[in-house]
Amino acid sequence: MNGAEAFIETLYACGVEVCFANPGTSEMQLVAAVDRQHGMRAILGLFEGVVTGAADGYGRMAEKPAVTLLHLGPGLGNGLANLHNARKAATPIINMVGDHATYHLHYDAPLTSDAVGVARPMSDWVRVSKSNRDLAQTGAEAFGVAMGGYPGRIATVIVPADHAWSEGSASVAPPVIAPAPQSPAAAIAAAAEALKSAEGPKCLFLGGRALREDALVQAGRIASATGCRLIAETFAARHQRGAGRVAVEKLPYFGEQAEAFLAEFKTLVFCGAEPPVSFFAYPGKPSWLSPEGAELVRLASLREDALAALTALADALDAPAEPALIQAPTTFPAEPGKLNSANLGAILAELLPEDAIVSDEGATQGGASMLMCAGAKRHDWLQLTGGSIGQGLPLAVGAAVACPDRKVIALHGDGGAMYTNQALWTMARENLDVTTIILNNGSYAILNIELMRVGVQNPGPKALSMLDLKNPAINWSQLSEGMGVPAVRVDTAEGFRDALTDALAHKGPRLIEALL
Amino acid sequence: MNGAEAFIETLYACGVEVCFANPGTSEMQLVAAVDRQHGMRAILGLFEGVVTGAADGYGRMAEKPAVTLLHLGPGLGNGLANLHNARKAATPIINMVGDHATYHLHYDAPLTSDAVGVARPMSDWVRVSKSNRDLAQTGAEAFGVAMGGYPGRIATVIVPADHAWSEGSASVAPPVIAPAPQSPAAAIAAAAEALKSAEGPKCLFLGGRALREDALVQAGRIASATGCRLIAETFAARHQRGAGRVAVEKLPYFGEQAEAFLAEFKTLVFCGAEPPVSFFAYPGKPSWLSPEGAELVRLASLREDALAALTALADALDAPAEPALIQAPTTFPAEPGKLNSANLGAILAELLPEDAIVSDEGATQGGASMLMCAGAKRHDWLQLTGGSIGQGLPLAVGAAVACPDRKVIALHGDGGAMYTNQALWTMARENLDVTTIILNNGSYAILNIELMRVGVQNPGPKALSMLDLKNPAINWSQLSEGMGVPAVRVDTAEGFRDALTDALAHKGPRLIEALL
Repeated sequence: MNGAEAFIETLYACGVEVCFANPGTSEMQLVAAVDRQHGMRAILGLFEGVVTGAADGYGRMAEKPAVTLLHLGPGLGNGLANLHNARKAATPIINMVGDHATYHLHYDAPLTSDAVGVARPMSDWVRVSKSNRDLAQTGAEAFGVAMGGYPGRIATVIVPADHAWSEGSASVAPPVIAPAPQSPAAAIAAAAEALKSAEGPKCLFLGGRALREDALVQAGRIASATGCRLIAETFAARHQRGAGRVAVEKLPYFGEQAEAFLAEFKTLVFCGAEPPVSFFAYPGKPSWLSPEGAELVRLASLREDALAALTALADALDAPAEPALIQAPTTFPAEPGKLNSANLGAILAELLPEDAIVSDEGATQGGASMLMCAGAKRHDWLQLTGGSIGQGLPLAVGAAVACPDRKVIALHGDGGAMYTNQALWTMARENLDVTTIILNNGSYAILNIELMRVGVQNPGPKALSMLDLKNPAINWSQLSEGMGVPAVRVDTAEGFRDALTDALAHKGPRLIEALL
Repeated sequence: MNGAEAFIETLYACGVEVCFANPGTSEMQLVAAVDRQHGMRAILGLFEGVVTGAADGYGRMAEKPAVTLLHLGPGLGNGLANLHNARKAATPIINMVGDHATYHLHYDAPLTSDAVGVARPMSDWVRVSKSNRDLAQTGAEAFGVAMGGYPGRIATVIVPADHAWSEGSASVAPPVIAPAPQSPAAAIAAAAEALKSAEGPKCLFLGGRALREDALVQAGRIASATGCRLIAETFAARHQRGAGRVAVEKLPYFGEQAEAFLAEFKTLVFCGAEPPVSFFAYPGKPSWLSPEGAELVRLASLREDALAALTALADALDAPAEPALIQAPTTFPAEPGKLNSANLGAILAELLPEDAIVSDEGATQGGASMLMCAGAKRHDWLQLTGGSIGQGLPLAVGAAVACPDRKVIALHGDGGAMYTNQALWTMARENLDVTTIILNNGSYAILNIELMRVGVQNPGPKALSMLDLKNPAINWSQLSEGMGVPAVRVDTAEGFRDALTDALAHKGPRLIEALL
């Protein structure tokens, strides 16, 4: 077999079943190899940010990597922003990036670029295969990096075209993946001691895998034993929540609100997250948000086994088997009439189906939905981990591919959704069960707030126009239908309720344009 | 003034008049500074590839840099592909990329990335300002790099937020820009000798600034004196052509066709271009396209003054004042009925207005238009220089901003146009005089050809589906109207003629979806 076939066969033997692809000429042998590997699904994205964002959504839900297929350095460049988000989410992803044949590189043909240089800033590991025979081995190593770096890492393989097409290769055995690193016993003892001896308010601050249902049960036991509050990082890769699960409070986004929220705590124990910092710096405001003089204890880092650490801590505290802070089912009344973020959130919370997955890039208009869904039916809530907007639609694509039996809701601001609007086409092509809700306020609304927060006084019309998307207003229903996803525009609570009810009653992609 | 104001004032004093922007929180001080600089126009793009592609189009036509405004490393990442194309076009561009405040970087907040690492692969020069006072100096140096590296270079400035907002800065004087480097006298003598003594067919191979009208006049004089043929590089940043100008033949795209095209030449003189190589490597096919044993002479590199070199060569050859190879006005009959690339090209050639600018990313369906427009009214033809598709719509945006009195035609394949479809919104917002023609064949058609060329036999349905855009078919008219650009779908020659006539008769953006 040729190098491409050996590479793909090796990845498939590792358990890689999905290839999100936007290939070009230099990747045709890789396309052919995916074609011949009958167990591997190939999903086309019409822009590379869709491909990498989908791999992120897939990885978050499947807990194993998809492989992306990208076209040389520039194609990888288009995928970087969502790789950045995926890396911050610690999602396992393998990128395969075609490059010119090794002997062609020095000619400086038009598409020649420093592919390794493009890969490095957003990858945890980058390798160029050394030969067609080495390609399969490189694939196995990439899988080892992606899955071995708990919970996941970004591994990028640069594949010279001649390594892909040359014959005489063979697949290699999958690597052995070590179990997740364990938090040291001393860290568990220190956390137990800190919570037991705390003389003021205390909290368990949770991120990463600590926000999964099983880990939260242990966190709830610890809360039961110690009375500590449970707080989640502001942007979580995947938070399992809803009625019947252990409830966790959310750290606010704005630095000064987050600082005030944390101010009372004398003891903070961290599991799956580091002490929080402000998202941006602002003149005269602190970056570090934990209260001065408080005791900060790391129970487990993002890269350590959160479930084991929380279980060990709960046991060390002789915590009861039953967790505290079980979330009660809650709904909120939806004020009729003009649609706004509050009645939209109330209706979403009321109608959210069991086991839904919400890909949330709702930004300023989505916060109410997140709060109101806390007591909705059980669901997974996926957030924008790296701050680079344009993640939510691709993430929904990947989540829907990973979990075909679960309804996916993409809750998205209009500004962010424009970056990767091409994801709608993939939803249509693959008939993915995604209901996209575009929160259309015709604005980069967050920037109107941030403009003041960074100290800009009296912004002029030119500055304000840079934050405004109303001239012309974007018609998301037309965009959606143009890409094959049925769409409806609503501007009242009643209209939204009808549209969402209808979308949830049917399988397949829909878009609801919520005019706010 | 603060660092941002000093920076922007310095750029404006250098002659930078346009800022293509997609800012975020870390760039709010830069937005405010652009706002206060009343001479600088700010143009919003809803995706960074639109921003960098527009800066490329602007730079090609204005022959000076626009400044881009991009949001940290991930935002810059989204702009890399079109920076790659711009760099291959040798377009002057200044990127300003916001970054976290210097003291905030070490906290590893969600948007933290290696911005310098992201910038380096597609920039000729990268610098992080050292302080708020240094920011203006960095801006002046960036301008010096962008304009001093004839014809142009990509200069990227990373702007930490605290450097932008800190007071106590002052603008600095624009740098002195050295004239274009001259081709050495020995090169001119060698080229003259080679053309005079050539014993077989000879050609002058032209690229870069050698494809401008004034340089082509000199090339036509040389052709008159020596009988050499004039050949243009396959993908030119800006080729001034049309009836009354000196005609140049085009080197074909596919390597074996290009090799056959060049095979007869015993002598090749290069001006503004290097000896051509195949775009991609293919198994068993050569990368190097010049005939074995031919004499290859470099008259001037891309980075040397092409007009001066051609003038000196013509004079050294005692060439007549009148150039040979003046293009006669030509039109082609347009077969009525079903629209195809041939009758579309014939109609475009017939209707193309004087001084039009064509941004050509027509790919497989656009080649006929390029050939047929050779004898149309005078125009500038801009091509995809770096091979990373998704350049043509943004390039049209920038060209229209640079040349508000000229009609811009964006001739674009459907696959490529999807990558940066957001450019349509900027066309609508700025009421740019761009007629976009989408060549909708529902396919990455070139890849169907390349699949065979790289040696893939009997591709299966999964491979073929990776090259197909028909399921679902994209409705470009809906996309266009959704972003505020009036659109029409046509599938006959008559329909296309009517639509194009109408679009050319009115100022402002239009889209014609040509169903092929």
